[in-house]
Amino acid sequence: MENSLHKISEEALTYLAKIKEGNMPFLSKAITLIESNHTKHLALSQQIIKNCLPYAGNSLRIGITGVPGVGKSTFIEVFGNLLTTKGKKVAVLAIDPSSSIHNGSILGDKTRMETLVQNPHVYIRPSASGGNLGGVAKKTRETIILCEAAGFDIILVETVGVGQSEITLHSMVDFFLLLQLANAGDELQGIKRGIMEMCDAVVINKADGDNKKAAQIAQQNFINALHLYTEKNNQWQPKVLTCSAIENTGIEEIWQMLDSFTQLTNSNNSFILKRQNQEQFWLFETLNNALKDRFYNNPKVKKALKEQLALINQKKTTPYEVASYLLDLSNL
Amino acid sequence: MENSLHKISEEALTYLAKIKEGNMPFLSKAITLIESNHTKHLALSQQIIKNCLPYAGNSLRIGITGVPGVGKSTFIEVFGNLLTTKGKKVAVLAIDPSSSIHNGSILGDKTRMETLVQNPHVYIRPSASGGNLGGVAKKTRETIILCEAAGFDIILVETVGVGQSEITLHSMVDFFLLLQLANAGDELQGIKRGIMEMCDAVVINKADGDNKKAAQIAQQNFINALHLYTEKNNQWQPKVLTCSAIENTGIEEIWQMLDSFTQLTNSNNSFILKRQNQEQFWLFETLNNALKDRFYNNPKVKKALKEQLALINQKKTTPYEVASYLLDLSNL
Repeated sequence: MENSLHKISEEALTYLAKIKEGNMPFLSKAITLIESNHTKHLALSQQIIKNCLPYAGNSLRIGITGVPGVGKSTFIEVFGNLLTTKGKKVAVLAIDPSSSIHNGSILGDKTRMETLVQNPHVYIRPSASGGNLGGVAKKTRETIILCEAAGFDIILVETVGVGQSEITLHSMVDFFLLLQLANAGDELQGIKRGIMEMCDAVVINKADGDNKKAAQIAQQNFINALHLYTEKNNQWQPKVLTCSAIENTGIEEIWQMLDSFTQLTNSNNSFILKRQNQEQFWLFETLNNALKDRFYNNPKVKKALKEQLALINQKKTTPYEVASYLLDLSNL
Repeated sequence: MENSLHKISEEALTYLAKIKEGNMPFLSKAITLIESNHTKHLALSQQIIKNCLPYAGNSLRIGITGVPGVGKSTFIEVFGNLLTTKGKKVAVLAIDPSSSIHNGSILGDKTRMETLVQNPHVYIRPSASGGNLGGVAKKTRETIILCEAAGFDIILVETVGVGQSEITLHSMVDFFLLLQLANAGDELQGIKRGIMEMCDAVVINKADGDNKKAAQIAQQNFINALHLYTEKNNQWQPKVLTCSAIENTGIEEIWQMLDSFTQLTNSNNSFILKRQNQEQFWLFETLNNALKDRFYNNPKVKKALKEQLALINQKKTTPYEVASYLLDLSNL
């Protein structure tokens, strides 16, 4: 395809120029276009994204997750401010498919990040729209492209620990950081399946005051638990650190760990390889979901599926026979 | 659908009658038809399966996995013989997608199960055919139906611990048993992602002689590790037992555990619910794979996909734009 967007509009060119300058209001307006569900905004937003692409990619994308109460906002505030003292421009985004329902976008309450909001080298964008996770993910990934084109070096993407959202987050970041608390012995319990094995680092927050000892025990427990998993392709051995966001201790060490990570993964080429794998993941994810949507929303299939499921439960047919029948039906 | 198979052939009726009598040669012949890749056998084998369905389902399907060397054959021999002393008829099957390549079907070497082979209440069927896992799974699931119609109470399905095969196994059995060895401290390492959380029981084999102490330590380690996972829907708390297949110790306890399992899951209805979920799983698995096959084997899509992936890597387009382009293309 020399695709349908090869004629770039004047308007899109203006956006591109302004975004490349790092113009925040234009960046915000462009993100709003991306987040819009109006079809009239689609052509323009796609043109902007496409033209930002050549200038995107030059950031470290860090995913941050953890249960409510773990101190994500405080952590991001302290960590984000530290990054700017290292000369970094920082964008903070959120994946929060539930925000429209619960009215509880993590970043919505910016008062939690008072100093970060005022930091001129930081751009904070709460996840505006709810809807399905695939849709939210698409918008977030497109927002990352725009932020990178606008010159942001570090993209922090956070999500609350709800269901599938960590997996989605993992598929769009270079580094996946799990924040944890040290709760007397219980710290390993209740971790969702698969979360541990996605971690590039576990950081135990609130390692301060009376909590210090418990945090160290938790640290050792996590080190043991991470040993359950085989080494990752990128040769990175997941790390377990402790910190106190409130006392601002252990934060510098986290940055140094990230620095080691980028050095390692750039030197063994796994950084770029992971990015390419993620692009392919999202391509096939999008395609496969669309194929299923198209099939299962076919009225003939919809009606027959219900009947056939009943027949399976009555032991009158097998899943394989039903599959073959429904596939024929969808082609009629 | 009143499906295309409502006219049952004379031949299929003969098979049905013989299978219901527990006639082993006919059972074997029918399974060979299922395993055949010749289209001429398809209509007959599907008729046989369909007519066996009403008589199927009344067994306990037990999946057994573990790395090579863990003693699966010896375990199955001892365990299978025990089951027959409880008045059970036992069928032993295998999922082994690699058998055609490696010439190493687990059950192929029946000399390992000398006494079991001679037990008149036991039917052993090595996995005859290689090929893709989905195909092997389909044949195994259809074989289970036939074995159940032939009156087998316990179906043992084993697989070597290779890649996806445990997940496939898990999706077709009522109870998933992982055999392990007690290797000084290392016993938790190298367990494939997700295997632990599928376990209904871990059984540490070779708990004999000098190994006994190590087996007990391993037992405690596994109990701790299983605590990482949240409770299953069926309220079954996964168990960790030790046994020695060679010395025939701890085997009775495994049977008692299975008895508790069936009592619990029958009383809370989760047994039948899991079966129904598995049927649905295989229906959607079969459908979704077929949808993908159809799409990605479309010559237009095939050609364009290759080009578009290159464009993505060159940052000239996004996965979302490519997806939309390819979907349009497949409809032309």
